[in-house]
Amino acid sequence: MPVCVVGSLAFDTIHTPSGAATEVLGGSATFFAAAAAYFGPVRLVGVVGEDFPARFRAQLAQRQVDCAGLETKPGRTFRWEGRYSADMNSRETLRVELNAFGEFEPTVPASYRQSEVVFLANAAPRTQRRVLEQMERPRFVAADTMDLWIETAREDLQELLGRIDALTINDGEARQLTGHTNLYTAARTILGWGPRAVIVKKGEHGAICVTNDGSSALPAYPVERLVDPTGAGDAFAGGLCGHLAERGAMGLAELKRGLAYGTVCASFAVQGFSLDGFRNVTRHDIDERLERFQAMLAF
Amino acid sequence: MPVCVVGSLAFDTIHTPSGAATEVLGGSATFFAAAAAYFGPVRLVGVVGEDFPARFRAQLAQRQVDCAGLETKPGRTFRWEGRYSADMNSRETLRVELNAFGEFEPTVPASYRQSEVVFLANAAPRTQRRVLEQMERPRFVAADTMDLWIETAREDLQELLGRIDALTINDGEARQLTGHTNLYTAARTILGWGPRAVIVKKGEHGAICVTNDGSSALPAYPVERLVDPTGAGDAFAGGLCGHLAERGAMGLAELKRGLAYGTVCASFAVQGFSLDGFRNVTRHDIDERLERFQAMLAF
Repeated sequence: MPVCVVGSLAFDTIHTPSGAATEVLGGSATFFAAAAAYFGPVRLVGVVGEDFPARFRAQLAQRQVDCAGLETKPGRTFRWEGRYSADMNSRETLRVELNAFGEFEPTVPASYRQSEVVFLANAAPRTQRRVLEQMERPRFVAADTMDLWIETAREDLQELLGRIDALTINDGEARQLTGHTNLYTAARTILGWGPRAVIVKKGEHGAICVTNDGSSALPAYPVERLVDPTGAGDAFAGGLCGHLAERGAMGLAELKRGLAYGTVCASFAVQGFSLDGFRNVTRHDIDERLERFQAMLAF
Repeated sequence: MPVCVVGSLAFDTIHTPSGAATEVLGGSATFFAAAAAYFGPVRLVGVVGEDFPARFRAQLAQRQVDCAGLETKPGRTFRWEGRYSADMNSRETLRVELNAFGEFEPTVPASYRQSEVVFLANAAPRTQRRVLEQMERPRFVAADTMDLWIETAREDLQELLGRIDALTINDGEARQLTGHTNLYTAARTILGWGPRAVIVKKGEHGAICVTNDGSSALPAYPVERLVDPTGAGDAFAGGLCGHLAERGAMGLAELKRGLAYGTVCASFAVQGFSLDGFRNVTRHDIDERLERFQAMLAF
């Protein structure tokens, strides 16, 4: 079954200890779509400016991402510039230009409205909700968020949490949202607000997942040549949602395997700038790494 | 086969967000021995002062720890006082009194010298080496270290690394020792100095292990009621070495399962101050949690 993602597309300028990249294709929807496309059809809802180049569109088209929902507005595309710390566990935003993304009022094309798996990538909770209201009968809805919305739109966010199946959130943001330092306690608190799964992303330390059936944790897949962590969390969500859609089932077993696929997708994403980490990576490579991950965790 | 541990025994005074404990039984050898004793006989080499109370000895005896190598010196026992940060990922040392531990020149009793599994808990690398030289034919030697020795005895430490099978080390210390921020790169660098396994402990984020056959990672076992992280790393090493000794084999498969047992032992250790986390915990409880850990990591 198809996956629908709504989120940002951006020009990223990135500085990491491994190097730098200037005005490359980025954005939450981009990374999600690239990962999810390994598992089946992906429908993208987003907005770009008139400067969004044909070569960026070609990168999405080449991955069979349906861009019927990609709107072009007058003016420039969203731009983000950031610098990562020496250990790449934290980053500083040097520049943000929302541009076309600033007043994003997504319209979900009629051809997308029956998508059964939906990912609401990081956007204002109110925008995420408007998208959700346009979907006809989604079976699994996951959302991401960020510190900005926790600070400025907490009520909208809590309201959204009552309407989704899963939240993906960074460790720092989970602590900020709940006031709990223990991540399991924080995740359980969020669980109480509505979703049936809370997935806390910990970067190089992997992820934890809390549901009403219990807590679990997965390490990150070992990556020795880390180039750029940008997009890892969205690629993670892409692998997770992609697997659920491919399986056509959303039980605990599928969720667990989806988290592992997400971990593997994230491990490819961080091996290059922009979508370079996925260059020449086939579905076979994804499955091979999943098997190695599985063997690594068996004892 | 029996495990021999050499390390500290201490009076710990600890402040955590969960509470405080004053002058309770602590020390690296204590936590290691408590965990390893679930798997078979443990022989302890250490030193205490005349103030080391009978009730502390009773705690070790009750766990069948052989204390023939526990020397009593005039004066007071090693004391440590520390305070943990809100997230318990870092701690500040408020007070250290080395006392009897300050000039620790361990003599390994004749009855211990044929121990086949040896753990050199955190001590001056020169002291660790002297202990090792008293062992007759150990089959598996693991050692721990700390920032102090990396700063003040780096050459001795590197020399020791050429004589041991496995090093357990904290993430921050691995970075400090090698200058590499990527933990896999750091571990691989240490591997080049001699040991055949380097195990980097990451607290609530679990551990990674690098050998010449590849890298692996394990998350920590989910603990929602974290009371005191003190001793988690030594309990981890106790579970690992205890399993190897019980199996009587030190191959990769045993090492992997040992890391999982270590993770489980650490998860009990942090559920209470001192050895309280192990109170009423049976070998059956350890194995049950290992099975849950295994199920959690299967997908």
